[in-house]
Amino acid sequence: MDSSRERTSSPSSAEDAADFHPLDRFNAFSDGVFAIVITLLVLELPVPPEGVPLLPALAESWPDFLGYAISFAFVGGIWLSHAALTKHLKRGDAVSFRLNLVLLLFVSLLPFSTHLMVLHMAGEGAREAVTVYGVNLFLASGMITALLNYAAHDRYLVVDDVDDDKVIRAYRRRRKYLILIAATILVGLIAPVIALGFYIALALGFIVQPLIGMRRKR
Amino acid sequence: MDSSRERTSSPSSAEDAADFHPLDRFNAFSDGVFAIVITLLVLELPVPPEGVPLLPALAESWPDFLGYAISFAFVGGIWLSHAALTKHLKRGDAVSFRLNLVLLLFVSLLPFSTHLMVLHMAGEGAREAVTVYGVNLFLASGMITALLNYAAHDRYLVVDDVDDDKVIRAYRRRRKYLILIAATILVGLIAPVIALGFYIALALGFIVQPLIGMRRKR
Amino acid sequence: MDSSRERTSSPSSAEDAADFHPLDRFNAFSDGVFAIVITLLVLELPVPPEGVPLLPALAESWPDFLGYAISFAFVGGIWLSHAALTKHLKRGDAVSFRLNLVLLLFVSLLPFSTHLMVLHMAGEGAREAVTVYGVNLFLASGMITALLNYAAHDRYLVVDDVDDDKVIRAYRRRRKYLILIAATILVGLIAPVIALGFYIALALGFIVQPLIGMRRKR
Amino acid sequence: MDSSRERTSSPSSAEDAADFHPLDRFNAFSDGVFAIVITLLVLELPVPPEGVPLLPALAESWPDFLGYAISFAFVGGIWLSHAALTKHLKRGDAVSFRLNLVLLLFVSLLPFSTHLMVLHMAGEGAREAVTVYGVNLFLASGMITALLNYAAHDRYLVVDDVDDDKVIRAYRRRRKYLILIAATILVGLIAPVIALGFYIALALGFIVQPLIGMRRKR
Repeated sequence: MDSSRERTSSPSSAEDAADFHPLDRFNAFSDGVFAIVITLLVLELPVPPEGVPLLPALAESWPDFLGYAISFAFVGGIWLSHAALTKHLKRGDAVSFRLNLVLLLFVSLLPFSTHLMVLHMAGEGAREAVTVYGVNLFLASGMITALLNYAAHDRYLVVDDVDDDKVIRAYRRRRKYLILIAATILVGLIAPVIALGFYIALALGFIVQPLIGMRRKR
Repeated sequence: MDSSRERTSSPSSAEDAADFHPLDRFNAFSDGVFAIVITLLVLELPVPPEGVPLLPALAESWPDFLGYAISFAFVGGIWLSHAALTKHLKRGDAVSFRLNLVLLLFVSLLPFSTHLMVLHMAGEGAREAVTVYGVNLFLASGMITALLNYAAHDRYLVVDDVDDDKVIRAYRRRRKYLILIAATILVGLIAPVIALGFYIALALGFIVQPLIGMRRKR
Repeated sequence: MDSSRERTSSPSSAEDAADFHPLDRFNAFSDGVFAIVITLLVLELPVPPEGVPLLPALAESWPDFLGYAISFAFVGGIWLSHAALTKHLKRGDAVSFRLNLVLLLFVSLLPFSTHLMVLHMAGEGAREAVTVYGVNLFLASGMITALLNYAAHDRYLVVDDVDDDKVIRAYRRRRKYLILIAATILVGLIAPVIALGFYIALALGFIVQPLIGMRRKR
Repeated sequence: MDSSRERTSSPSSAEDAADFHPLDRFNAFSDGVFAIVITLLVLELPVPPEGVPLLPALAESWPDFLGYAISFAFVGGIWLSHAALTKHLKRGDAVSFRLNLVLLLFVSLLPFSTHLMVLHMAGEGAREAVTVYGVNLFLASGMITALLNYAAHDRYLVVDDVDDDKVIRAYRRRRKYLILIAATILVGLIAPVIALGFYIALALGFIVQPLIGMRRKR
């Protein structure tokens, strides 16, 4: 994908507007799935039973709370990318709807992978657990790139006044991000704790960095 | 339903526009149910406990992951048909809202049937489990056809510029699809594994085929 | 509430449009809660464990399936009334939003009450269980009436072209319905099985009756 | 924040409208999360097993029902504030979307904190449990204030005809509310039962007070 790329005009689809799918359903359904996935890990947070000293019990389950926060940040981040992407779309088609389903499939596995990583981080399976998590994150994030890539090539899907430079910059940002995750997966094969630390930094950075920028702006 | 069918103009409803129900609620509610149903099976994915070798444990629960993927593909497919159908509607009425509720009832049973099929596939109950799944799929998919059929006969429900040929083609595609599922149910009574293989192929085909088409188009 | 009632014009609210709340959030939030509540009972459906004869095990848990269907019909029915009501509204205010929250509170208890009724129907607690269910249904349904009643009295909430006769007829239908539930609660104190039968008939009738009307219309 | 405050006009963002995010996704996603969170505690309500005397068993689990009602009222209240806030917005940006994610993170912890408080209220951990709940409520509610504060300072986010006095009054109401919660947290460190009573009163008051006002108005 380079700046001189041309969007195929796919005349058949042009004549056949009814084959395009309604974007409002696409968005509402996706928002529903994201909303469920982002809250699913709450169900995993263990409420200490009666009679147990409360604060030590809560402190002991810090990995669950950490997992909850990481998962929230990453699912939130993918949702944000999704919302930023679909604002450039004016309709969907058979392919973009299916790419979105595959994207949602990987997103909805994130609570599972997070739970897995958090549970096995201190044990023998740390390497495998961190790798599973990284691969899941890579696939979910990669599908956003695939959707962006697909939509950007079809003039009938994107809004008319889309800024090509903006799309290219978004694409490059995403590619950089994917390379970063891929590198972290490799690091995790040798040093899983460092990879985990990096995922935490990435999650924190995603949320915190623009908020710091907010203060500077004023 | 043939190409010379006429839509009844039901004068009583024409005079009584307030009896029509708002389609935005119809869609939002349906999208919510689909979003929940499609993510429900994530809750069934077993996270291997601490201390257990991770990769073998994950590999052993492959039926759960397969079930998750199949369920995701079929619920996603029914949602897609639902979205494609309702884009031809301009309003709903008492009957279409109830048909939709019955449709959602069968859709929301799919995670249960999938779980059942996956759990009993290797055991004595394989035949029954595959049949329950097939019947559930047939009923859910059949309700989409019923809703399409009902809406297509009432000029007050569909958008004004609807293309009759398109509706008829959609209807025939759906009929073919239902016959296919019915045949697979019969096959499953004799050879449940073949029926399961066919459901997997159908689910994969639904997602993958348009993506292959995407590559050819370019 | 009679046909000569006047809507209070509440001048203070008229001047203070910003105090009115956006109906789209009201609807989206309500649709989300309804969608979750209507699918919650799927989680209660027991998947027979491996090695158990499948069909007998499924047949034995018929009360769970019956409860699922009843709950689906009633929650679906209340959602339908809610959608029919809010199409007459053009905005909400502090009171209608709170009435709606109380309505959703009672609706979200319905899966719990249904589960309770189904589990205890064959045992000692049948009378209490049926009564709890009936009271919950009465409260949820009564809140729809309260919301209708409140909105119908405030010209600033309803759409301009609302048909007063229609609202009055809706109101009378709802009152009849509430009296019916109240009567069934009383019956259930003496003969819980008859009350259960009546709730099933009511649920079935709600779904099936308009579908029969559909056939006649053609 | 005082009445003479000026909204920064942030020229860079003005030129760069594509950096603004679509508010409909913001609202739909938030409504989805609120809808899930508000119904999550239903899953905690214990259905007494067969054979147990029903009414005593239900009466014994009154803390669960109380917790459900409190949680419903507070999540409902925060949702209401959120809806009241976003009706003044015409778009979002990177910061407001992230503030919203942090808000939703704290909101989605409320069912957990409520469960914790209700379970440990009668035992040794009452002080800690009430404090955890209060801090969670303070953080969730404080993020609404932070979002209001941020949005009110950026002319490109709020609707054009926003009434400054109204925003200031809303801001002061929220500040008073936060001080109230902070004071209750301090009280709870000494007398947890009084703090609990106050949270109940606050929850009840939020729902009931406008309904009483409704009667007076007529």
